[in-house]
Amino acid sequence: MNSEPRIVMVTGGARSGKSSLAESILCRHAGPRIYVATAQAWDDEMTQRIKLHRDRRDADWTTVEEPLDLPGVLQRTDGQGARLVDCLTLWLANLGEAPGPAIDALCAVLERQQSPVVLVTNELGQGIVPENALARRFRDQHGLMNQAVARIADEVWMAVSGLPLRLKPQKETA
Amino acid sequence: MNSEPRIVMVTGGARSGKSSLAESILCRHAGPRIYVATAQAWDDEMTQRIKLHRDRRDADWTTVEEPLDLPGVLQRTDGQGARLVDCLTLWLANLGEAPGPAIDALCAVLERQQSPVVLVTNELGQGIVPENALARRFRDQHGLMNQAVARIADEVWMAVSGLPLRLKPQKETA
Amino acid sequence: MNSEPRIVMVTGGARSGKSSLAESILCRHAGPRIYVATAQAWDDEMTQRIKLHRDRRDADWTTVEEPLDLPGVLQRTDGQGARLVDCLTLWLANLGEAPGPAIDALCAVLERQQSPVVLVTNELGQGIVPENALARRFRDQHGLMNQAVARIADEVWMAVSGLPLRLKPQKETA
Repeated sequence: MNSEPRIVMVTGGARSGKSSLAESILCRHAGPRIYVATAQAWDDEMTQRIKLHRDRRDADWTTVEEPLDLPGVLQRTDGQGARLVDCLTLWLANLGEAPGPAIDALCAVLERQQSPVVLVTNELGQGIVPENALARRFRDQHGLMNQAVARIADEVWMAVSGLPLRLKPQKETA
Repeated sequence: MNSEPRIVMVTGGARSGKSSLAESILCRHAGPRIYVATAQAWDDEMTQRIKLHRDRRDADWTTVEEPLDLPGVLQRTDGQGARLVDCLTLWLANLGEAPGPAIDALCAVLERQQSPVVLVTNELGQGIVPENALARRFRDQHGLMNQAVARIADEVWMAVSGLPLRLKPQKETA
Repeated sequence: MNSEPRIVMVTGGARSGKSSLAESILCRHAGPRIYVATAQAWDDEMTQRIKLHRDRRDADWTTVEEPLDLPGVLQRTDGQGARLVDCLTLWLANLGEAPGPAIDALCAVLERQQSPVVLVTNELGQGIVPENALARRFRDQHGLMNQAVARIADEVWMAVSGLPLRLKPQKETA
């Protein structure tokens, strides 16, 4: 039995150090580590980012690339090691128009996990309201997804300028 | 006499759970509850959002819709119950070009309230600098409004991914 | 000898009260104070902002305007008083295409400072992903700069609605 939290969510802005924070949290756990990449390398900029992230990890890691069936990957890999999901934002973007059922499926799978899962996501609702309706809808869906995962998570952290801020559990509640 | 804080501000990004947090804070108070909606339902998207917010509350609530004279509403309803103002961002947008005097009036009224007021606002200054000057000016006015209300408030919370982070009062100060 | 922290970083969104917070932190230190302005007054809006910031400070301050050679200014003024750098975001914007070496030089200089330095920066990675590639690259470079300076800093604060939130040092770590 493990007293460490099983499900951890790490949120943060762009280049806030959230992936590094997530990796350091995952490395609390001994044993095999599985990196679940949700990115699709559809352009040079993204290919470069994926490479940067990959170079930072050492040889102890197995990488699984899965842009869509994240619930399935978590289900299949449970019991095989600690998983780092990087990231929920790109997964949501890959899902397209009606992500609701996939988010529900993710939450259902997360609640049944035996091995640890650390999930990276983004803060993207703290800027000025986007001018185009598509961006506004994505921002809404993304915020609701973050809330749903944070509700299940044993721990939630926000990275700011590379520094961790713990949001859950908190000593002080509203 | 009531030892609960009288004026509470709740800030947060889009879909961060700030309205739900504000409702749960207001529900510390027994007795009648008044929902002060500042939204103007000028399009389908907004109508839908207002409906969603309304469906979440039960029959104990009275609703007052007031896009402009927020100070007047708070003054008239003081003594009649706890008020939830949702939200300051839409109120500021409704005010137009020169919101300074209305913000001053709001602050003056807040300082004299006897019944509780919970005010919802947004974080919208943490994205990249907007390209158009109007958005930049709104962002500036909005930040100054948030500072002015936070200065008066007994408690300030930020919602992140549905989780509350207390900003005021704090044990540690700068 | 001084037990006060030597290097302090203050981050925050637009109009979050970060400059005021930085000034109040600097004013813990007795003796002369030097305001290092990195802004270039290339338009009326910016000229107005610089004037506003200047009017808030009293006559105890010396002002140095330096849009580019921030490491040099800090080196030359070390030992002459406490410095307030306002702000790193504009400095990065002034640096142009390849800011890496200048950021490294800044960090090297910060590590050797004897007199206090308080540096103001912005949170600008928490909005929706910008549509243009230039803004995305600036956002990335800016996030990495914030991480590098936060790593060196003895204290890091985030201003939200005029309220200080301490990010470093923290009692609770990941």
